[in-house]
Amino acid sequence: MKKYKRNQRIGALMKIFAEKPNYIFSYNYFSEIFNAAKSTISEDVAIVKQLVAELEYGKIETISGAAGGAVFIPALGTEEKRNILNELCDLFSNKSRILPGGFIYVTDIFNNPSIITNIARVISSEFSNKKIDCIITVETKGIPVAILTGQKLNVPVAVIRRNNKVTEGTTVNINYVSGSSNSIQTMSLSRRSLKENSRVLIIDDFMKGGGTCKGMADMMREFNAEVVGTAVVIETKEPEKKLVDDYTSLLILNKVMEKDGIIDIQPNFKLLK
Amino acid sequence: MKKYKRNQRIGALMKIFAEKPNYIFSYNYFSEIFNAAKSTISEDVAIVKQLVAELEYGKIETISGAAGGAVFIPALGTEEKRNILNELCDLFSNKSRILPGGFIYVTDIFNNPSIITNIARVISSEFSNKKIDCIITVETKGIPVAILTGQKLNVPVAVIRRNNKVTEGTTVNINYVSGSSNSIQTMSLSRRSLKENSRVLIIDDFMKGGGTCKGMADMMREFNAEVVGTAVVIETKEPEKKLVDDYTSLLILNKVMEKDGIIDIQPNFKLLK
Repeated sequence: MKKYKRNQRIGALMKIFAEKPNYIFSYNYFSEIFNAAKSTISEDVAIVKQLVAELEYGKIETISGAAGGAVFIPALGTEEKRNILNELCDLFSNKSRILPGGFIYVTDIFNNPSIITNIARVISSEFSNKKIDCIITVETKGIPVAILTGQKLNVPVAVIRRNNKVTEGTTVNINYVSGSSNSIQTMSLSRRSLKENSRVLIIDDFMKGGGTCKGMADMMREFNAEVVGTAVVIETKEPEKKLVDDYTSLLILNKVMEKDGIIDIQPNFKLLK
Repeated sequence: MKKYKRNQRIGALMKIFAEKPNYIFSYNYFSEIFNAAKSTISEDVAIVKQLVAELEYGKIETISGAAGGAVFIPALGTEEKRNILNELCDLFSNKSRILPGGFIYVTDIFNNPSIITNIARVISSEFSNKKIDCIITVETKGIPVAILTGQKLNVPVAVIRRNNKVTEGTTVNINYVSGSSNSIQTMSLSRRSLKENSRVLIIDDFMKGGGTCKGMADMMREFNAEVVGTAVVIETKEPEKKLVDDYTSLLILNKVMEKDGIIDIQPNFKLLK
């Protein structure tokens, strides 16, 4: 069987950790793939741990004992977070995005994996210290954010549908008032998609009145789930009073001036403290 | 400014490559973050290149010259592909997934980032040698597969909607015949979401008659786009003749025997040659 040099094992370890953050890998697993003694692996992990700390990538936590292992918990420094949020503001505020009626075209951004990966890095960094079992979102535009945050936090996602589908099995359906349009809408979640008593993080792309997020929180009660956090990519400044109290937004949309071609959007500075 | 040891640079390089495959990083970029000479970086990259080859992670391609850089192109060995496809078959064939009417509950799988990352690794490995500008899918269940494949191939995604939304701007709408249900349906894609003359990869979760994939291919003609490939996660064995000719499936669903509680599904062995 092939043997690898320390250099190579360090590189390979870092690749494995980076591709599956927040996942506990056993030393046995590494021992097997590198054909090396556990003591060697343990030294390698110590080097990786130091490197992750020095380069401010987050931290490596090690679990000792016979079933020992290690997990990479990424984190973002304030500087990197600031860069990501500023880049997002530049993207969203491009005046060519203004649509008739003062809407903003954002679909391309929400479907761009490279941009959404950065958004997911910010959200997962904010919530990596909470025990989360599942991420909840509602179709359609929030799905990529939820999936990529789920990838970073290593948790599954449950997607609430606007319509009831035969392929969802038994579903729980609730009606909710859309805060912005004041119309009654329905959301539907498969009974099988979320275990009872889960701890969930609610994610959505956009919050105006907060009706959709409140609807999702109400839905969670039907599953005896505990909402440990709510994250939205963009919140509007107005109305200031939302239907949910406790949420984290990345960006705040102050206003759209259709005639002047101005989209006034800013980072949520609370994240940069 | 901090200096890093070779070990550390190798680990950091591998992390950076792994988090953004198919993206060309310049040597200047690495030079800056590691505070090291370009000649040093060039040696580091050579080590990483060898490590990626030896561990069969794919390949590192280097671009020489003043604007030199390097890109990580992941690939999967046949053995790893076989393991992924077999694991997927085990997951999908669990008899508790059978729903009334012989449908299969698969939503949890398609929303699990860890599982879908593996599916995306197989698809991106199959198509990494084609020049692709954009991935196309249709809401809802295919979105995570499309987004995570887009992450691996470093390309954006365009999501076709079932309904026309005001926030999509000008849209192109087409009617198509759903191959399985023989009903007429509509799909809608924002004009802005796809550049003219793009080379696209079509992705969907499930193919029975092939009507949806054919609809997407028809839609592509409206954008003068060239379909360079079509990938579906599961195709049904029947009908054998689909409405599209050239496609790649990961799994083949032979049949569902509701009464006996059997879901007969197998890997597409063509991928394992």
